[in-house]
Amino acid sequence: MKSDILQRAKGVCDYGPTEKIARDKIIKTMRQVFESFGYNPIETPIIERYELFASKFGIGQESDAMRETFKLKDQGDRDLVLRTEFTVPFSRFVGMNPQFKKPFKRYQMGKVFRDGPIKLGRYREFWQCDVDVVGISDSIIDAELVQLTNEVFEKIGLEVEFRINNRKILNGILQNAGVADKNQETVIITIDKLDKVGLKGVKSELQEKGIKPAVISKILSTISIEGDNKELIRQLKNIIGDNEGLKEVEQTIDYVIDNQNVIFMPSLARGLAYYTGNVFEVYLKDRSKVNSSICAGGRFDSMIGGFLQNGESYPAVGISFGLETIFDAIKLYSKEKEQNSVIDLYFIPLSEEYIKPALKYCKKLRKENIKTDIDYTARKLKKNLEYANSYGVPWVVMLGEDEANKGKLTLRNMNSGEQALLDYESVLAKLKEELVIEDNKKEI
Amino acid sequence: MKSDILQRAKGVCDYGPTEKIARDKIIKTMRQVFESFGYNPIETPIIERYELFASKFGIGQESDAMRETFKLKDQGDRDLVLRTEFTVPFSRFVGMNPQFKKPFKRYQMGKVFRDGPIKLGRYREFWQCDVDVVGISDSIIDAELVQLTNEVFEKIGLEVEFRINNRKILNGILQNAGVADKNQETVIITIDKLDKVGLKGVKSELQEKGIKPAVISKILSTISIEGDNKELIRQLKNIIGDNEGLKEVEQTIDYVIDNQNVIFMPSLARGLAYYTGNVFEVYLKDRSKVNSSICAGGRFDSMIGGFLQNGESYPAVGISFGLETIFDAIKLYSKEKEQNSVIDLYFIPLSEEYIKPALKYCKKLRKENIKTDIDYTARKLKKNLEYANSYGVPWVVMLGEDEANKGKLTLRNMNSGEQALLDYESVLAKLKEELVIEDNKKEI
Repeated sequence: MKSDILQRAKGVCDYGPTEKIARDKIIKTMRQVFESFGYNPIETPIIERYELFASKFGIGQESDAMRETFKLKDQGDRDLVLRTEFTVPFSRFVGMNPQFKKPFKRYQMGKVFRDGPIKLGRYREFWQCDVDVVGISDSIIDAELVQLTNEVFEKIGLEVEFRINNRKILNGILQNAGVADKNQETVIITIDKLDKVGLKGVKSELQEKGIKPAVISKILSTISIEGDNKELIRQLKNIIGDNEGLKEVEQTIDYVIDNQNVIFMPSLARGLAYYTGNVFEVYLKDRSKVNSSICAGGRFDSMIGGFLQNGESYPAVGISFGLETIFDAIKLYSKEKEQNSVIDLYFIPLSEEYIKPALKYCKKLRKENIKTDIDYTARKLKKNLEYANSYGVPWVVMLGEDEANKGKLTLRNMNSGEQALLDYESVLAKLKEELVIEDNKKEI
Repeated sequence: MKSDILQRAKGVCDYGPTEKIARDKIIKTMRQVFESFGYNPIETPIIERYELFASKFGIGQESDAMRETFKLKDQGDRDLVLRTEFTVPFSRFVGMNPQFKKPFKRYQMGKVFRDGPIKLGRYREFWQCDVDVVGISDSIIDAELVQLTNEVFEKIGLEVEFRINNRKILNGILQNAGVADKNQETVIITIDKLDKVGLKGVKSELQEKGIKPAVISKILSTISIEGDNKELIRQLKNIIGDNEGLKEVEQTIDYVIDNQNVIFMPSLARGLAYYTGNVFEVYLKDRSKVNSSICAGGRFDSMIGGFLQNGESYPAVGISFGLETIFDAIKLYSKEKEQNSVIDLYFIPLSEEYIKPALKYCKKLRKENIKTDIDYTARKLKKNLEYANSYGVPWVVMLGEDEANKGKLTLRNMNSGEQALLDYESVLAKLKEELVIEDNKKEI
């Protein structure tokens, strides 16, 4: 029975305290940056109607999206799915909530689901953290997303590269190369694989798809042009002529303060069919260990309008952070020490009769926002210190006969092993001096 | 098409900014209190194996638990469920992670799911926030949970009543009344409904279940005894004799500092079969508007041992907070003003040429942790002020020709309508004085 029951479902993870504390820190940093740029939180459900996702991702489409969507039914036999991303539910939310004045800027963080193959760093449920704006068609807002993204990774401590391209540029390149309109989407799906399969791989896949050699060679030579952002834009203007997408990329880059970290990459495609303008992908600068994008997004100007069909336009742009990849990257690159516990202080009553007085001290310490755990077992001191150590608790307080007689407490620094007999006020002062203590009055 | 697509699944909710901000505040308060008592965060997946939940809740059992569980399959045809609660996954986690020294104290917050009928305040996905300890059989730790719970509701600003009983007392009462062992579980399920159906309802359901009238009357007279905690314990000792559960309740109440808010209630049952000792339920003191429990839990000493079957014992106790009910209660009882946005400041460039200089100010303000939104549309001032008002943003800064010439900014208090022409440093000083600003250095 044991081995049968004690298993997780395939492709999902547990996170113990050490991992969860690290993940919560990333989430907190993102929340702070998102809010500092004026984005408000919302929450949509995990369960959505099958029809909603099918309307965007189709069935049996070239994309794996619907095949890899978890499907379920309720007791009323309704067709449901577990959300695979936030853009479609966000569009539904905006469509159902016309009361929010535009631009409507929101972020959402939570689990999304995919019933696909498991690879390292690719799970069946994973956290996504999305920021989106609806109501601004101007590329200035795209530049805001670039800056917000750079700010997140600066705070997290990862060096990244922000890549940008535009669907209209890709379409321009394909048109110029002689790809028929109806074939453009399938060619883009192949170009999207450039990073993984290289120019040769793209070439052979395009051949398989029946694209003519001359057309293929024109596509490949165009997406392989080199130079800095300005030079690439200049060259492309020469090749494909006047292009709305080129202007949008130019304007976006222009509005990013100090032009930091933005790289224009004409081959960047992004698989999803719903993108209409700029597309983004963010990679670690050092890709030797983490090769997949850690953040991606783009413009989806027709999705909300498509839902609503009220003749109004709902320009929208957003970016999505994958917590798992960021978490993996931090484990590889961060020098910060892992934290095995949130506890500041472990309180040890040295025998059972000191539990009640210890509890009174704990109550006072907790009121000072010192995270305090206490031993109720009156087990041996050695065992208690081992316990505190195993969770990396930095401070221990002991209360026994000696301390009680003198009206004092023994405070032990678990890192240095030093300890001192102090009155409560001195213990508190020392802890306040040494610990980073959360202030409960602060807002989220 | 429109009406077909723009719908949520049945029984799930969207939370816009106002509601999400309020919910996040509750979650933050709980997190702070849980951590202050020495509980660490963990995260288990939403998808679990069908077998795990079926092993605890059975199939076709009298309880609705498995029938109301969302079931699904992955592409490999594996039987899965969406978790309905955290206790079973926590027990699995502890069983699979023997490396954590006991006591292991953890909290988990997140969505759980039930495919049941929809009532007001009862949805198909809802947040639950659980604290549990494994490794302490002594009731002192149960007292810690009482205090932690009281602390949560004190901070949230709701007046509650903490009810306690014990499975062993119920069993003692039933044994004393002459209920056969095999019938005790079903009788407890009926007693659990006392609050909803009253003594008469319980009586008639027990009759339907074939319990003899003399037995029923003895049960009912015992669970209806009255008095304060001490008096009830004294009376029950007289009726059912020496009882382990009575000692546990007595010890728990004794260890709650100042005995605050704990009410012993011999009729309290809690439906779930896995409880083995103390059971808890928390209600608002004023039940006129919210009648269901807002928090509940108890001891489940045999579950983890049952999974592991290694001969060791894993005493465990926990309590679970339902976010939806607490959120509903706050909406009814809290006097705090709703917050429609997290934004502190809305920056208005008075024409397009001031957008770039405005962006530089925004960057500086955000570095000071002032949550700053900016207008990119250069729309009319009146429209911009309406926008800021609709989200309840408290401060607006304007930058136009006049301000630029003088090297100053116009700061407007959106509540009073007062505005002043100030240099950047004075704007910053004023905002820092007036706003509650989050300190990024603080830990989670």
